[in-house]
Amino acid sequence: MTRKILILPGDGIGPEITAQASRILAACQAHGLDVEVEEALVGGAAYDEHGEPLPAVTLDKAKAADAILLGAVGGPKWDKLEDLAKRPEKGLLGLRKNLGLFANLRPAITYPQLASASSLKPELVAGLDIMIVRELTGGIYFGQPRGIEVRDGQRVGFNTYVYSESEIERIGRAAFELAQKRGKRLCSVDKANVLEVTILWREVMERLAPEYPDVELSHMYVDNAAMQLVRAPKQFDVMVTGNMFGDILSDAAAMLTGSIGMLPSASLNESGQGMYEPCHGSAPDIAGQNVANPLATILSVAMMLRYTLGEPALAQRIEDAVGKVLDDGLRTADISSEGMRTVSTRDMGDAVLSAF
Amino acid sequence: MTRKILILPGDGIGPEITAQASRILAACQAHGLDVEVEEALVGGAAYDEHGEPLPAVTLDKAKAADAILLGAVGGPKWDKLEDLAKRPEKGLLGLRKNLGLFANLRPAITYPQLASASSLKPELVAGLDIMIVRELTGGIYFGQPRGIEVRDGQRVGFNTYVYSESEIERIGRAAFELAQKRGKRLCSVDKANVLEVTILWREVMERLAPEYPDVELSHMYVDNAAMQLVRAPKQFDVMVTGNMFGDILSDAAAMLTGSIGMLPSASLNESGQGMYEPCHGSAPDIAGQNVANPLATILSVAMMLRYTLGEPALAQRIEDAVGKVLDDGLRTADISSEGMRTVSTRDMGDAVLSAF
Ligand SMILES: CC(C)[C@H](C(=O)O)[C@@H](O)C(=O)O
Ligand SMILES: CC(C)[C@H](C(=O)O)[C@@H](O)C(=O)O
Repeated sequence: MTRKILILPGDGIGPEITAQASRILAACQAHGLDVEVEEALVGGAAYDEHGEPLPAVTLDKAKAADAILLGAVGGPKWDKLEDLAKRPEKGLLGLRKNLGLFANLRPAITYPQLASASSLKPELVAGLDIMIVRELTGGIYFGQPRGIEVRDGQRVGFNTYVYSESEIERIGRAAFELAQKRGKRLCSVDKANVLEVTILWREVMERLAPEYPDVELSHMYVDNAAMQLVRAPKQFDVMVTGNMFGDILSDAAAMLTGSIGMLPSASLNESGQGMYEPCHGSAPDIAGQNVANPLATILSVAMMLRYTLGEPALAQRIEDAVGKVLDDGLRTADISSEGMRTVSTRDMGDAVLSAF
Repeated sequence: MTRKILILPGDGIGPEITAQASRILAACQAHGLDVEVEEALVGGAAYDEHGEPLPAVTLDKAKAADAILLGAVGGPKWDKLEDLAKRPEKGLLGLRKNLGLFANLRPAITYPQLASASSLKPELVAGLDIMIVRELTGGIYFGQPRGIEVRDGQRVGFNTYVYSESEIERIGRAAFELAQKRGKRLCSVDKANVLEVTILWREVMERLAPEYPDVELSHMYVDNAAMQLVRAPKQFDVMVTGNMFGDILSDAAAMLTGSIGMLPSASLNESGQGMYEPCHGSAPDIAGQNVANPLATILSVAMMLRYTLGEPALAQRIEDAVGKVLDDGLRTADISSEGMRTVSTRDMGDAVLSAF
């Protein structure tokens, strides 16, 4: 049965990095992977063409796909759009919501070859391997009511941070199950000393815990979690948190590794359908220059093979190829250092392909 | 005219560290500072005694005071209190709200003597001097409606992230004015690509900018700000943001310096009345052991002298005394390292007093 993959290059460096990932996907096809690959527009690119960041034609293709590979969306060109609903980011948020991609897995891994690129002292990040599980279809990024309106003669902006028990339970189970397959420690992050919504969050996590007796559950306030990530990131195994805290903490954690250009992510729904994308953004400042790092996107293909397509052997092949290229001293500009060979986006793609 | 100072030791290590700060305050009195000093209960300590984290008697004294010195509140003993309104944290939040302490100044400074204590590479934090201005009486920590209720047969938790134009303008002006006195660069942090409330935030900051032509205003999304703090904190001068983002980012920034035990903070209202407290928490795990670092609290007294009492010379004396003690190699356990003399809370107080 032929599976369907949709590639959404998006904006900024998106087209360049997904182009390299497509080549790897083609190589997998040559090795027997039975997939059909299509492309579509999303984000600012879709807005420019169709006046919508998530046109119906793209959403239909996304729904029909088994897996989606996304580059990145957004850029200063669209930042001035008055109507928030037209901004590139809404394309991404719309995909997450419409496909029910509630479980966002964001690994923060230090590659041994790149440990010195971290801003942290090497001993604090060597061997780092955290998985942040971020709830992706609820919380304040989607909560109603929201808006800007006039109250008592002045404008007031408001958003609603909201979670239901079933939403919390669903992401909680995903995190517990992931912790079972890893180091068996789960840290749930909230602000239960101040916010009611996270009191409920903590309560549900506590209620689930006895069903996963092999996992050690702990709780941490979000301000402390931000500190602990900076102080001693290796204390964590799996972290689980809501949409907004997850956005902030996963980016901080990714940056800690010194190699955010290397980090893939997966966003899964209940039926195993998934969207895969690099952790980094659309980097408009270097777009079109053939210097962006395609490795996070290439590694997102590996995650796709593992989590949606059930092809762990091919996933491993990609990961090994990336490891080999790093061992050989090849680096894009973002991760380069003295004595390494700085290469372009396309050269990096070539190198991974020949190591594959 | 005798000014009034209220000391609120609070919970955990609060009583030990404020005790040392009181001694410095007494030394200032001996040098001519005309103040009357009182103490009162807040947080868990107040709950245990009066059944309320912010008893009326404490609030009355706080309102009558020119400046408040707070230790810290909270601890596991009260974490299980079902009623959020009774938790120690509500004592602190109630003080902020009732006194209108909307401007929270949180410096993140690397002390040259302690640069090696940072988890970041020394070159990234040497000379670091950021000021984070956090809005403290609005945003999601205070927004209505809030609660946990049953909807469609299941419980739902919700909080409201809300800011009015006038609230944003007030904190914006405080931040612009501070930037004018410092490096003249202000970075406003929001999530304007997703949250309407922060679209309004960004708009108001933009509107204020022309009134402060000597200050360079920039904007950054909160997820990126968390990354940039980790990657290259020295790029910032003053940052301004809402209550929740400020909570998270200021703690991360404080931890970056490696010396969170050294960082004071000020919370000011429109009439210059202020509450001063260390950035760190109540550290219940080491409470009562005479090992906590009193320097952040002692430096909070210096901030009080500078911002509320108009005594910059005495403030400088305290800061110089702390510098001398560090130069002499004295360290409490949290900031100690090889070759240094590890001392107790009380010994550290003694040392600062004799250097004063
Ligand atoms: C682009 C933006 C809407 C998005 C988010 O905040 O979720 C991004 O920052 C991310 O983390 O995937
Ligand atoms: C104790 C808590 C309510 C408080 C806050 O979140 O504001 C603390 O973390 C702080 O940053 O002062």
